[in-house]
Amino acid sequence: MNTVERKYHLLTKANYPQIVSLVSKLCRVRRFELLKRALHSLHPTSLALLWDSFDEPEREMILGQLSSEYAAEFLTELGSDEREAIFRSKDTAWIFDRLEELETDDIAVILRDLNPRDTNFILRRFDKNYTGKIKEILKYPEGTAGALMSSDFLAVSRHATIKSIVSQFQKLVKHDQLEDLQFTFVVDRGNKFVGYIPIRKLILEKSSRKAQEIMQPAQVMVGPEQDQETVAKIFKDYNLLSLPVVDSRGVLLGHITVDDVVDVLEEEATEDMLRLGGVTQDAPHVQSLAQMARGRLPWLTINLATQVLSAWIVTFFDETLSKVILLAPLMTVIGGQGGNATMQAVTVVVRSLALGQINGKNVSKVIAKEVGVSSLNGFAIGTFAAILVYSYTQRAGIAFCMFTGLVSNMFIAGLVGSMLPVVLRAFRLDPALAAGPIATTFTDMCGFSVFLGVATLLIGKFGGL
Amino acid sequence: MNTVERKYHLLTKANYPQIVSLVSKLCRVRRFELLKRALHSLHPTSLALLWDSFDEPEREMILGQLSSEYAAEFLTELGSDEREAIFRSKDTAWIFDRLEELETDDIAVILRDLNPRDTNFILRRFDKNYTGKIKEILKYPEGTAGALMSSDFLAVSRHATIKSIVSQFQKLVKHDQLEDLQFTFVVDRGNKFVGYIPIRKLILEKSSRKAQEIMQPAQVMVGPEQDQETVAKIFKDYNLLSLPVVDSRGVLLGHITVDDVVDVLEEEATEDMLRLGGVTQDAPHVQSLAQMARGRLPWLTINLATQVLSAWIVTFFDETLSKVILLAPLMTVIGGQGGNATMQAVTVVVRSLALGQINGKNVSKVIAKEVGVSSLNGFAIGTFAAILVYSYTQRAGIAFCMFTGLVSNMFIAGLVGSMLPVVLRAFRLDPALAAGPIATTFTDMCGFSVFLGVATLLIGKFGGL
Repeated sequence: MNTVERKYHLLTKANYPQIVSLVSKLCRVRRFELLKRALHSLHPTSLALLWDSFDEPEREMILGQLSSEYAAEFLTELGSDEREAIFRSKDTAWIFDRLEELETDDIAVILRDLNPRDTNFILRRFDKNYTGKIKEILKYPEGTAGALMSSDFLAVSRHATIKSIVSQFQKLVKHDQLEDLQFTFVVDRGNKFVGYIPIRKLILEKSSRKAQEIMQPAQVMVGPEQDQETVAKIFKDYNLLSLPVVDSRGVLLGHITVDDVVDVLEEEATEDMLRLGGVTQDAPHVQSLAQMARGRLPWLTINLATQVLSAWIVTFFDETLSKVILLAPLMTVIGGQGGNATMQAVTVVVRSLALGQINGKNVSKVIAKEVGVSSLNGFAIGTFAAILVYSYTQRAGIAFCMFTGLVSNMFIAGLVGSMLPVVLRAFRLDPALAAGPIATTFTDMCGFSVFLGVATLLIGKFGGL
Repeated sequence: MNTVERKYHLLTKANYPQIVSLVSKLCRVRRFELLKRALHSLHPTSLALLWDSFDEPEREMILGQLSSEYAAEFLTELGSDEREAIFRSKDTAWIFDRLEELETDDIAVILRDLNPRDTNFILRRFDKNYTGKIKEILKYPEGTAGALMSSDFLAVSRHATIKSIVSQFQKLVKHDQLEDLQFTFVVDRGNKFVGYIPIRKLILEKSSRKAQEIMQPAQVMVGPEQDQETVAKIFKDYNLLSLPVVDSRGVLLGHITVDDVVDVLEEEATEDMLRLGGVTQDAPHVQSLAQMARGRLPWLTINLATQVLSAWIVTFFDETLSKVILLAPLMTVIGGQGGNATMQAVTVVVRSLALGQINGKNVSKVIAKEVGVSSLNGFAIGTFAAILVYSYTQRAGIAFCMFTGLVSNMFIAGLVGSMLPVVLRAFRLDPALAAGPIATTFTDMCGFSVFLGVATLLIGKFGGL
């Protein structure tokens, strides 16, 4: 890292200790004018990132110095638990004054966390038109396009000239709305969405030109019930900055902006990743130990049940095991490799499904490839393990059992690990559930059966291994 | 899904079969005028998404109908292997004509995949100034801010008036550059970055105002060597649309736009996820079966080696095992639960590290919590398993071994699974490597030792279980 990189890295992270100690000191000596200036020179996101470094009295003093506008942006950047903690110490009038500075989508996000009484109290304070817009967003459940959208936008008619669009835009901004506008939307009679105009076009084109002459026609849009994962995929595929949300008649309800989608992408990736790791719901920074343990216990319990199943399969072979006790430690190798190969196939297929890379056309090819890959590796690992076992024990029978056990185990791992996520998706279930015990146990049961079954046959034939 | 949602979903996915068959048909009957119109009514991304549905002669005909501008955008949306296949059938002049339509960052992405001879040939054809800009981007390795940045931007002096900025902007767009501009950058003498102006400000402010009066001061920026994961995190935290890249003296080199960062976020999540699943490098749609198998084999081999280690530990207890053969099947439960609990802890901690939620201050709290969670679940699962074993076997000794084995196994799982990623990160290694065999084997070895050790002690004391 060169000097400037360090310098600018500072702006985002490395100088946190200095900033924190400066702010704490200014609180302690009650130099509020200086504190105010120091805070406002900081990006609201930076203050949010630093928030857990301050104690309660400091937080109170800091909040007292923030302008409503700054506080509003700061609140949207805080985690919802930290925001709630602040709201508990403030009355609804204080909250309203800050929310007033925000756009409809951010207001809706914050209101979702409040209790219904406070929400209603705050909604009544907004002007009627604005309340309606926020209520429209709140109507849609979290995780949908409707809940993500902002109702703050400028919609103009097909026949509006650039000149009139610019003056409408200026008027709206004067009323403290639409500060972040990137696009003007063009609508038909009845507010039906027909196209959009990037703001820069308003500068580049002659002021007498009409909206319909310079607009980009409507190509991609979503309904408010669309799930956020699909929304994120559309943004990614089409490199969008904004996506219009329309109702069943094509009427423009709002638009989703790319910054919200960035968060969605992270959320969805986190969800998939945790589920693959056997963690259903987890938020380590918010949940209590007991909550976290409860959240993971179901998974472990189901696993226990299925492991009991494979243990039960093994008990059928207790005679074989007592004849050749060495088979017991080797079982751990069979189980371990089957589990690994299953997870490899599941992970690759689940991620490919999430990225939309698997479709009806190539699904059988994908499964065949996974089976091929794990079978190939089964032969390699099986051969290697058999050689190890033989050189350690000098017993070809045991080595042969090891080889057949691993090959069949890993063949099944590829088959089950790649098919199960696809089947789950076909039934509209989460493919990541395939990382669970069903696949691994099935693989284990097959592996153990072949391993111990071959051993039993050989012992029957030759009286030993 | 309501009707319009279906209708608009069509625009992005559900009507693909119809579009494909229409395009194929137009190719077959050689109605090129109609084909051209049909193709250009499609979003370039949609054509890229459909590309693998067409055969070679169809592809050739489609490419022949695309305007250079459309083809350019289409090429940036294609996967690099599909793009290469097209380039193999075209000469460098054809490639140049399409690249010419693109911005510097997209050109650089495409040139990285070409061989040096073609790259040089193409670079010589651009005008000197433009070639310099592209070479600047190519200088930085993939995965850095420099490689992600675009050198197309408008930089104005502090003292420029809005009027002059607008006219500079208009002139640049006339020369077919900067079509997607969202910001004007403000620079000091020597091109040092001092602030930026959102395009909408050029409409909203009086045309006589100066850049320095209306600009947002420079707050967040990165050096060209900064890794793309950090860049993505800055975008996410600060809700940016664009991030300036500056050299060690603060000179503006270029800027990164949010649409490129969306791809980075997905890439990084995929990388982590696959690594957690034991897959180092994988691109199932590009790699051959042998390549994929080779990519996963190292992981399986290391796993084999460590599993042999735990199998070896187990061999020390063969006398115990031969006395109570029922211990063998139960070992599979111990191993399985330890593996699951380890993966749960590793997944949560690796994801929290990637999201920047773990810092020096809370790291010991995070580890303590993970140990607490898995210990708590160890008691629950251990009790449950012991009851199961007792009701099946009526042998309290075996049930007791099961309980102590599971409790100690899961305690170790929480400890190793949470600490190992943190330690790896401290040594600047990838935390996701912790999902690997080291953690699980260590857990298994402890679990097996306690389980079989307690059994051995009890047998020594009571002569049986």
